[in-house]
Amino acid sequence: MRIVVALGGNALLKRGEPMTAEAQHTNVRIAAAALADLARDHQIIVAHGNGPQVGLMALQAANFAPDTLWPLDILGAETEGMIGYLIEQELMNALPKGTDCATLLTRVEVDAKDPAFNQPTKPIGPVYSADEAEVVRAKHSWSMVAESRGGMRRVVPSPLPVAILGIAPIRLLVEAGVCVICAGGGGIPVVRKENGQMQGVEAVIDKDRTSALLAEALHADVLLMLTDVAAVFRDWGGPDQAAIGCVTPDALDAMSFAAGSMGPKITAACDFVRAGGTLAGIGRLQDARAIVEGRAGTQVRMDSLARETRLTCENEPSRLSKGKPEAVRDHA
Amino acid sequence: MRIVVALGGNALLKRGEPMTAEAQHTNVRIAAAALADLARDHQIIVAHGNGPQVGLMALQAANFAPDTLWPLDILGAETEGMIGYLIEQELMNALPKGTDCATLLTRVEVDAKDPAFNQPTKPIGPVYSADEAEVVRAKHSWSMVAESRGGMRRVVPSPLPVAILGIAPIRLLVEAGVCVICAGGGGIPVVRKENGQMQGVEAVIDKDRTSALLAEALHADVLLMLTDVAAVFRDWGGPDQAAIGCVTPDALDAMSFAAGSMGPKITAACDFVRAGGTLAGIGRLQDARAIVEGRAGTQVRMDSLARETRLTCENEPSRLSKGKPEAVRDHA
Repeated sequence: MRIVVALGGNALLKRGEPMTAEAQHTNVRIAAAALADLARDHQIIVAHGNGPQVGLMALQAANFAPDTLWPLDILGAETEGMIGYLIEQELMNALPKGTDCATLLTRVEVDAKDPAFNQPTKPIGPVYSADEAEVVRAKHSWSMVAESRGGMRRVVPSPLPVAILGIAPIRLLVEAGVCVICAGGGGIPVVRKENGQMQGVEAVIDKDRTSALLAEALHADVLLMLTDVAAVFRDWGGPDQAAIGCVTPDALDAMSFAAGSMGPKITAACDFVRAGGTLAGIGRLQDARAIVEGRAGTQVRMDSLARETRLTCENEPSRLSKGKPEAVRDHA
Repeated sequence: MRIVVALGGNALLKRGEPMTAEAQHTNVRIAAAALADLARDHQIIVAHGNGPQVGLMALQAANFAPDTLWPLDILGAETEGMIGYLIEQELMNALPKGTDCATLLTRVEVDAKDPAFNQPTKPIGPVYSADEAEVVRAKHSWSMVAESRGGMRRVVPSPLPVAILGIAPIRLLVEAGVCVICAGGGGIPVVRKENGQMQGVEAVIDKDRTSALLAEALHADVLLMLTDVAAVFRDWGGPDQAAIGCVTPDALDAMSFAAGSMGPKITAACDFVRAGGTLAGIGRLQDARAIVEGRAGTQVRMDSLARETRLTCENEPSRLSKGKPEAVRDHA
């Protein structure tokens, strides 16, 4: 199968871990091992997040020269370089000799009129205490919000991806069997000006939404969103908290989820399977293979497709026919 | 013709100009116009330098967290992202609609035993006054040297490129007619460990030397090294200072040049034409087309090839047959 894997920024840097080159090397090595395991049986295309990294780049630049703006499109491009390199290096170290790999910078068009530009929601950079956050806010005039898991983070606009520029060369490489790494950080955000020219903008695109676009454009069978949480949970933090196993997009639509990082993943998953994808999986990095095989994580799929492809949800097959999603097991 | 263009870091940021996003945008736009002009008649592959940029990244990182080392391989990868994006964006804005373009991160293998690791020579980052340089040296323990044009700069090891990793996907794209941007900053420097795995190293590879390797690997006709100097000069700063027009590698070998940024360009040019390339050109960005057409800059070529290809050196055809290079015009 052809699988687009979206690696969470947190899969590359553990929550709360100080960002060092060494920590990233270690985490990327772990991620590469999981990806290489998948690549033994499937064709993989790798996208990745950049939240912690783009935030650090912004901090480094702002501290060094407070009066010189380094916009988020350029900083995002820097993280595509940094993270893409680290993933390529460790993935190539983990894959059989002779495997070809290409890491491409990816510009992604967004709508200049996207309402997200007036309402920053995407957290980037380190997690601050309330006091630290106040210092950062005052120093750089950044928007800060409280995180659901505690602490404060900078937030920036996160417009929806409209089109992946340069998809043709990506497709060419994928069709030739090259392992492609692309769309890092959700892509470098650009808008189309009235004269038709493209221009970078101050934003960070959600990598899960872009990965869904990428998976559709490449006619992938599976969109796999890997993070540090075992699955999508119902009633997170409430008395009925439970992990969701196999589920349809319609059933997910009928549930309500607390705002947070799972929102874009759920939307991306539903969009992808409704556009014809076989499976959209959400779960932990180390469960990558198990999610694809229906043994872990949340697996979003259309009922009919699930029956056709024999990729049954082993952990709760009886619920599937009823089209009624239920928590089946707590993977946490 | 197939032309590998190596854009100097100084073609992207003018000497002494403060490094801002805006300045880079402006300079990249100028470079893109020159490249688009070439691309009308030829297939171009674009490589670029990163000296000023990788130095700035190192400064930003070192100032933000002095105890956290961000090694030059990672910083180099960041510059491949930043500069590659800026070039792709402006080049695509300048090229006809429908042109496909791909910007690839490029790892380049160097020899772990390269003597350059013990003798840093490659200048990166801003130009400092003597006093400023002393502050930087004391603060970061960096090696600093005086520049031939005045001022002091940080220097880092610059090992020779041995092999371009991932050349197969680059070749695939080039053969398909995609405009490829790659090998930024001379490539991300990596060494092969005893167990066969690749690992990043603290170095910056010379982009002209890597571009020569790239041009050979892609069977390019022309290697074009663009900078802010009109040509290679004999007796630079002396009474007989004169620009060199059309010249053979053997004739260049017989001359002596002051150590400086032209050294790697001359070596790269000679290597490329001796390996079968038609023409290696050195000169100013705005003369790109004129250099290829033999009307400006220094054109290095084998005599026999020069006769065969009808790409005569218009500015000094009579000297060609004698195989004796002479200054023909001062383009400065």
